[in-house]
Amino acid sequence: MQLTILGNNSALPAYGRHPTAQLLHIHEQSFLIDCGEGTQMRLQQYGLNAMRINYIFISHLHGDHYFGLVGLISSFSLLGRTKDLHLFAPGEMKNIIEMQIPWKLSFAIHYHLMSESEDRILLNEDKFEVSCFPVNHSIPTHGFTFIEKKRKRILLPEKVKEYEIPKYFYRQLTDGLDYEDKYGNITRNEWVTQEGLLPKKYVFAADTRYDESLVKYAAECDLLYHETTYLQEQQQKAIDRLHSTSVEAAHIARLAQVKQLLIGHFSSKYKKIDPFLKEAKTVFENVQLAIEGETYTI
Amino acid sequence: MQLTILGNNSALPAYGRHPTAQLLHIHEQSFLIDCGEGTQMRLQQYGLNAMRINYIFISHLHGDHYFGLVGLISSFSLLGRTKDLHLFAPGEMKNIIEMQIPWKLSFAIHYHLMSESEDRILLNEDKFEVSCFPVNHSIPTHGFTFIEKKRKRILLPEKVKEYEIPKYFYRQLTDGLDYEDKYGNITRNEWVTQEGLLPKKYVFAADTRYDESLVKYAAECDLLYHETTYLQEQQQKAIDRLHSTSVEAAHIARLAQVKQLLIGHFSSKYKKIDPFLKEAKTVFENVQLAIEGETYTI
Repeated sequence: MQLTILGNNSALPAYGRHPTAQLLHIHEQSFLIDCGEGTQMRLQQYGLNAMRINYIFISHLHGDHYFGLVGLISSFSLLGRTKDLHLFAPGEMKNIIEMQIPWKLSFAIHYHLMSESEDRILLNEDKFEVSCFPVNHSIPTHGFTFIEKKRKRILLPEKVKEYEIPKYFYRQLTDGLDYEDKYGNITRNEWVTQEGLLPKKYVFAADTRYDESLVKYAAECDLLYHETTYLQEQQQKAIDRLHSTSVEAAHIARLAQVKQLLIGHFSSKYKKIDPFLKEAKTVFENVQLAIEGETYTI
Repeated sequence: MQLTILGNNSALPAYGRHPTAQLLHIHEQSFLIDCGEGTQMRLQQYGLNAMRINYIFISHLHGDHYFGLVGLISSFSLLGRTKDLHLFAPGEMKNIIEMQIPWKLSFAIHYHLMSESEDRILLNEDKFEVSCFPVNHSIPTHGFTFIEKKRKRILLPEKVKEYEIPKYFYRQLTDGLDYEDKYGNITRNEWVTQEGLLPKKYVFAADTRYDESLVKYAAECDLLYHETTYLQEQQQKAIDRLHSTSVEAAHIARLAQVKQLLIGHFSSKYKKIDPFLKEAKTVFENVQLAIEGETYTI
């Protein structure tokens, strides 16, 4: 899994930072998580192919998490997209899109609308699983869990040579297929590959107040993205506005024993974001800042 | 009057070009004309104070002309704006805003909704007048005429010295006021100033098919902005999609005997936009390309 940050700021764009959007790659799929204003421009800026996005997840209906969606959908249609798009979003989203795009699109949108506080599997495919869970914010908001279920098998270089497997078949080998040559001789997959890595798990906790009920969803995940709108000096503001500080995010990461923590959704009051990292590290060592344009391997 | 281009591209953002938005300054007022996605980021990028915008005009409900509006309004409120905002837009706009911002804003929006094909004065103030007029596009669309009515008077340097007018009063002199000293002696304005320049007129023709009914609205204006989505080789596409070519825009400028023509709304199929200028110049000499971040004095 690879995660690219498209927007790392909170509600107001500032200092060249933009509202929330993230692109997650699992196998050949691109998942868009939230879609703040200008997301389509960020995708262009970073040379990412927006058309590969088949699944979009919207955490909640604050504008900095979805005002770019109608523009992205509109552009998909102008570009002649024909592939279906699956949209997982709060219930009002269908009306919001249809009011602004009253004409027929070049492709179908499948609306998978979430009601308040849902805790369920949204997608259960061969290679990945996506779930939503409720988080504690000022309006109904969901976090998302992305699990890469089946990890590709790993080639044994000596063995593939020994069994004379042609290179074009290497990819199928990593998918677990046996090889059969033109004489009907079968090379069994387990002779030339070994078990792949363990499943990977990414948890996007969206906008949330510090809330330990998040721990069970994030437990032992490979990467947790947790918002950190404020530094500790502004904790009261975090409480009032149902946001978190970086120290609070780090506490959740420690309680959940996650492997790595990624922090973002920085308030526009902060020009420099390094202090967020410094404060978080006092509680949880393996933490990184979400930087726009950077890709994090999970 | 000064016009700053915030977005010069057509529907799809491309090559670092953005959807339509323009900022027009008349006296101390900033008028925003259309508001494509990312307009608030462009205002920041060019160091323009968005909070000075009290009047917004939306030509039509294609997304590339208004998808940035809800984000801008939302940011105004987050920044604690208290000044009223006047929004001139097609009838559906109120619902579109209120569906996406169901909470109370920090300021009042006055909706001045336009129905189809209106040709009327929208604003008639002491120093400026704004009108709308229908243009020929695939959905109901309006152009706008901005007139700076009263031009400041011009100081006569020798005379203001001769009559010993204090410098702090120079600005009031340009506004036409007489000066009275502490003994009650009056210096009449016309003794120390001369008539200002003639009124200036800017016409924004929005998205439009080539249509000579525009000529009467643009007649003899100081600056006409006319869309040029396509080059002449794509004239059939311009006809089909109710857009114009640069040669067509130049023909309108010539028929209307405008002083200057500004062309924009370039299709994303064109990487280079210089050919638009070249083609327009074959018909009308005094033409410029609308370039993002550039300010044009009218």
